[in-house]
Amino acid sequence: MSTAGRSGRRPGEPDTRGEVLNAARRMFARHGYNGASIRAIAAEADVDPALIHHYFGTKRDLFRAAATFPLDVDQLLAAAHGHDREQRAAALARFFFSMWEQEATRLPLLSVLRSAMTDEEAAALLRTSVVTGFLGPVAEALGIDDAEARLELCAAQLIGIAMLRYVIQIEPLASLPVDRLLDRVTPVLEHHLFAD
Amino acid sequence: MSTAGRSGRRPGEPDTRGEVLNAARRMFARHGYNGASIRAIAAEADVDPALIHHYFGTKRDLFRAAATFPLDVDQLLAAAHGHDREQRAAALARFFFSMWEQEATRLPLLSVLRSAMTDEEAAALLRTSVVTGFLGPVAEALGIDDAEARLELCAAQLIGIAMLRYVIQIEPLASLPVDRLLDRVTPVLEHHLFAD
Repeated sequence: MSTAGRSGRRPGEPDTRGEVLNAARRMFARHGYNGASIRAIAAEADVDPALIHHYFGTKRDLFRAAATFPLDVDQLLAAAHGHDREQRAAALARFFFSMWEQEATRLPLLSVLRSAMTDEEAAALLRTSVVTGFLGPVAEALGIDDAEARLELCAAQLIGIAMLRYVIQIEPLASLPVDRLLDRVTPVLEHHLFAD
Repeated sequence: MSTAGRSGRRPGEPDTRGEVLNAARRMFARHGYNGASIRAIAAEADVDPALIHHYFGTKRDLFRAAATFPLDVDQLLAAAHGHDREQRAAALARFFFSMWEQEATRLPLLSVLRSAMTDEEAAALLRTSVVTGFLGPVAEALGIDDAEARLELCAAQLIGIAMLRYVIQIEPLASLPVDRLLDRVTPVLEHHLFAD
């Protein structure tokens, strides 16, 4: 979840590397790591498979690049530093859903979530990104002792919603406006984070 | 989620069909639908692949049998009919975790959850089992109008915990005693089910 390297291309030059990366994200997001072959990604990007290896190395390297995206940690920490408990909980929920509601971040997130169920490295990536990239900074900013799994229970509520809303697409949850979702979820995060 | 057919075998006769089914559950639970081949399941059960086809038909038929388990709907409905709101929420949470904490039900549940991320039929099975098998009866028993996705949000909290605790195994959540988990989760279910 850090910024992907710049391609260094000049204006007007076709961004083949970027197109391959986008094709890989769409395919990993749709089929997971094991279900998306280099051949299928090459067909999706309309390039030769050899070009993918040239730009990204192995399929594993390509997956790592596809699952990497800029995470605005400053915004996350600003959320954790909100004025009162309810505001902090609401800001965390808003931060989470703003990532899922934008395609640029939803595709990498879907890639990891789908793949983590059946691929041990993707599971490790999810574990690390949830624990180190998301829960760690939040716990520190909130000054929370996580002996009671408070942050994991928040993450469970949010990831569970992501699964049912964006992956499995159960109604009415899949169509609920984000604002209504935030109203429903904020008190839950507040409970998990702060209740005795 | 209905009772699997009886094998009709006599006492002392080896239950080969049952052993194949258990091997399939272990393999689907570990690798998901696409990751578990008939060949690997046959090796796990120490039988010839042809025997699997003889007993169960196609891999898809075998998966359906492996993902099927007795769901005690009466117990679920009794939970939904508890005396007060907190008791009903607590009983629902207990019912959910009692399924996950027993291997006989955890393996079919894991099989479906892992496979649903990358296999459309498994996703449909999860959608149906969550909506028709679990949420439907509970909504009816509770007399809940689900316009606000109340039950889906409960299911999201529970499934999210199942993912992080049993699949991804994030600590400390993976090791939290069930009783502590129930203490943390019951108020959340009560909020989702009943709060204005």
